Amino acid sequence: MGSIEFWYEFASTYSYPAAMRVERLAETAGVAVAWRPFLLGPIFADQGWNDSPFNLYPAKGRYMWRDLERVCAKEQIALALPPARFPQAGLKAARLALAGEAEGWTPEFSRAVYAANFAERKDISDDATLAEILERLKIDPARAFAAANTPENKERLKARTEEARARGIFGAPSFIAGGELFWGNDRLKDAIGHAALKAAPGDAR
Amino acid sequence: MGSIEFWYEFASTYSYPAAMRVERLAETAGVAVAWRPFLLGPIFADQGWNDSPFNLYPAKGRYMWRDLERVCAKEQIALALPPARFPQAGLKAARLALAGEAEGWTPEFSRAVYAANFAERKDISDDATLAEILERLKIDPARAFAAANTPENKERLKARTEEARARGIFGAPSFIAGGELFWGNDRLKDAIGHAALKAAPGDAR
Repeated sequence: MGSIEFWYEFASTYSYPAAMRVERLAETAGVAVAWRPFLLGPIFADQGWNDSPFNLYPAKGRYMWRDLERVCAKEQIALALPPARFPQAGLKAARLALAGEAEGWTPEFSRAVYAANFAERKDISDDATLAEILERLKIDPARAFAAANTPENKERLKARTEEARARGIFGAPSFIAGGELFWGNDRLKDAIGHAALKAAPGDAR
Repeated sequence: MGSIEFWYEFASTYSYPAAMRVERLAETAGVAVAWRPFLLGPIFADQGWNDSPFNLYPAKGRYMWRDLERVCAKEQIALALPPARFPQAGLKAARLALAGEAEGWTPEFSRAVYAANFAERKDISDDATLAEILERLKIDPARAFAAANTPENKERLKARTEEARARGIFGAPSFIAGGELFWGNDRLKDAIGHAALKAAPGDAR
């Protein structure tokens, strides 16, 4: 069975439609998805950016919001603009998503955080928003936050972000399939197709 | 009949596959194409960039070349890497392309310049490269260069670039269709689809 790694940052606008579609598209192609939450902030800082490039470059930002509307409309994904703020601070959500790997709730939790940000205009850095999502998913918030805030989990998120940098990731969403990096929601289907191809029996590539 | 404006810069990597495909895709959809050469340098300078962002941000640049290979392979478009240099100085070619509008050879000339840059590894700022292309297209180089270098034509290119900025263009290729801006080779089909939709008889949008 082929597999792809889905690298995402909760503040990232185009990671939203990717997160909402990746499991369905991968399942259709018989490809497994490994969810890889990470932080884009430190990687943007390497590039000299202390804010989202969509804020630093206003023409690009204006375009992105309109394009995101079109992308979400085409895929029938709910979108409510503007979000509570942009970019949102995704650190707490990323720590929780990482802690959820041990219990398997990372994908469902991550989709709910994206919906809170981009469809419900909630502040995803607010503990109440995150606790409400966890409760809805029948996860005990106190236990989840405790797991998220252990020194080990915090270090794991730093190592994860370091791994992203080392593997050439410079934006989100990114996909890694069959040793190839694919960047952007626009490359989701190509990445899944590549993963399926590499896993095809009898394929020598 | 619907129409799209195709805004392109000769140094732009992703403008290459767009230039090679736009007429065929538009024709199939019954959409006319207006070729709009412009200069991206002054617009990048607004953003604080004195070089291509693919050079300024090396991880993004490494990814772009690999992605461009995949895009061109998928579309069966010849690509020879690395080009003679990157980015190439497209000023002379842009002035010629603009001067060609009066005689209708802008599209054919522009495709040949892109092929020289990305498939033939030629220096497109070299007069000899440009003259050879013009001769192949049965255009008199001396007359074409003279038309390209009139003060009026130079001013027209400046005005064209100013128009790009004023209309929110921040990168290339860009497409304008039915009042909407679309950015990137990845949006070519969407832009043509939008142009066809806006032109559909009885459509009230």
